[in-house]
Amino acid sequence: MPRMTQPELEQLMDKSFPSWRTFSQIVGIGENDITIRMPFRQDLVRAGGTISGPALMALADTAAYYVTLVHAGPVPSAATANLDIHFLVRPKPADITAVATMLRLGRRLAVSKVDLLSGDDLVAHATVTYALPSS
Amino acid sequence: MPRMTQPELEQLMDKSFPSWRTFSQIVGIGENDITIRMPFRQDLVRAGGTISGPALMALADTAAYYVTLVHAGPVPSAATANLDIHFLVRPKPADITAVATMLRLGRRLAVSKVDLLSGDDLVAHATVTYALPSS
Amino acid sequence: MPRMTQPELEQLMDKSFPSWRTFSQIVGIGENDITIRMPFRQDLVRAGGTISGPALMALADTAAYYVTLVHAGPVPSAATANLDIHFLVRPKPADITAVATMLRLGRRLAVSKVDLLSGDDLVAHATVTYALPSS
Amino acid sequence: MPRMTQPELEQLMDKSFPSWRTFSQIVGIGENDITIRMPFRQDLVRAGGTISGPALMALADTAAYYVTLVHAGPVPSAATANLDIHFLVRPKPADITAVATMLRLGRRLAVSKVDLLSGDDLVAHATVTYALPSS
Repeated sequence: MPRMTQPELEQLMDKSFPSWRTFSQIVGIGENDITIRMPFRQDLVRAGGTISGPALMALADTAAYYVTLVHAGPVPSAATANLDIHFLVRPKPADITAVATMLRLGRRLAVSKVDLLSGDDLVAHATVTYALPSS
Repeated sequence: MPRMTQPELEQLMDKSFPSWRTFSQIVGIGENDITIRMPFRQDLVRAGGTISGPALMALADTAAYYVTLVHAGPVPSAATANLDIHFLVRPKPADITAVATMLRLGRRLAVSKVDLLSGDDLVAHATVTYALPSS
Repeated sequence: MPRMTQPELEQLMDKSFPSWRTFSQIVGIGENDITIRMPFRQDLVRAGGTISGPALMALADTAAYYVTLVHAGPVPSAATANLDIHFLVRPKPADITAVATMLRLGRRLAVSKVDLLSGDDLVAHATVTYALPSS
Repeated sequence: MPRMTQPELEQLMDKSFPSWRTFSQIVGIGENDITIRMPFRQDLVRAGGTISGPALMALADTAAYYVTLVHAGPVPSAATANLDIHFLVRPKPADITAVATMLRLGRRLAVSKVDLLSGDDLVAHATVTYALPSS
């Protein structure tokens, strides 16, 4: 069950990462997941006209961070322990939506999966582990 | 054995990704590896004073791309199929060096590993698969 | 859309891996996924009374292999290119169910995800890439 | 620096996993790594005459377990948190050697990499995270 609402998460981000809104927007928080959107910007495109891999990785990491905060509570010092991502199709230059789902919230680690979508197409799948600060 | 020299790789990058030099510099090419450096910039830092995870992932992906090009030849349309990265210590705000080593160059896939270093400290370890264009 | 029925897959396995039934059973094939079950056996248990990690990895790899065959067609020489697995909870000594879902079937690579369940509990999540033989 | 000698590790394994010697043998312990060998057995072979992927994954997990115990001390309840493996070449039916190197020993997590070799050929590369028991 979520421990933070969308306004609470947005306030925490405003305080910890003031410029976060230029990169992604929070669309909504579900029981066990969060949906965010990366608005298209020309500087996210790489040669060949597709959204760059690093932009997709940053988005996956961000979505996993948010779902971790929502479920673990306001621990902005949580840090990525590992991330794996599989690129499925090269996304065309357009907004990308990320849906991060909490798989397991432990005392020390939070594991989530992230689906990245361009419209209805799944363009990448990631699994991300966040290490939680000692309480 | 390398199929591209450092000047050839730099020319290819100048043509395909004109702004690449703002992000990383090529330090040298070995028999089976390549070393690159991401010069420190304030905008690579995240809250807490450490280099951000997405900057490290972008660097790992870039180093793997370069070692793939050096060994597969000039195929700039090679694309990341998957990347996994393990963050080991939070790097302090300073240059990061990446050493990418080719593990296996096949006809269709190139697998490399990347060690990211801050000074002598290993800060992250990645494994990256690039899909090669059909010849 | 599936290109093999359950009886066709079972016949292919009987021919290619005669002893496969001692390890897992096919429960059913969906539009985009397959469900298999690893019946509990005492030799799957490790110290501590939990199902061993290698048994779970073998099950994830097997489920991904089956969903790849079902969607790519009868290519038993398909081979795992990479597998990543996250262990979420230690499963108690009981049957494990695996649900493998095809994420992307390309000409050369098939990427699937696998959820491993003990009853209703998600115990592990894997992502698996199979390399398809050249046609 | 190692905290367990080879005889101490072998005694711990004899006590915790009595049948471990049928699967692998410890070749030697270095400053930061451990080398083990999986003797060839016919039942490790899959169709096509190559060592099976699950056998290689089990070996990688085992080697990572040993290097974790050697560096963290006698904590047999350490459990795999995640494992990723990249298969590079299909190994011929022969002994496989695994070299596991500790990348980072933290208080809660131990991350190691494992190279699997058939003779001099690198056949797979894995990265493994073990979760350490709370002390």
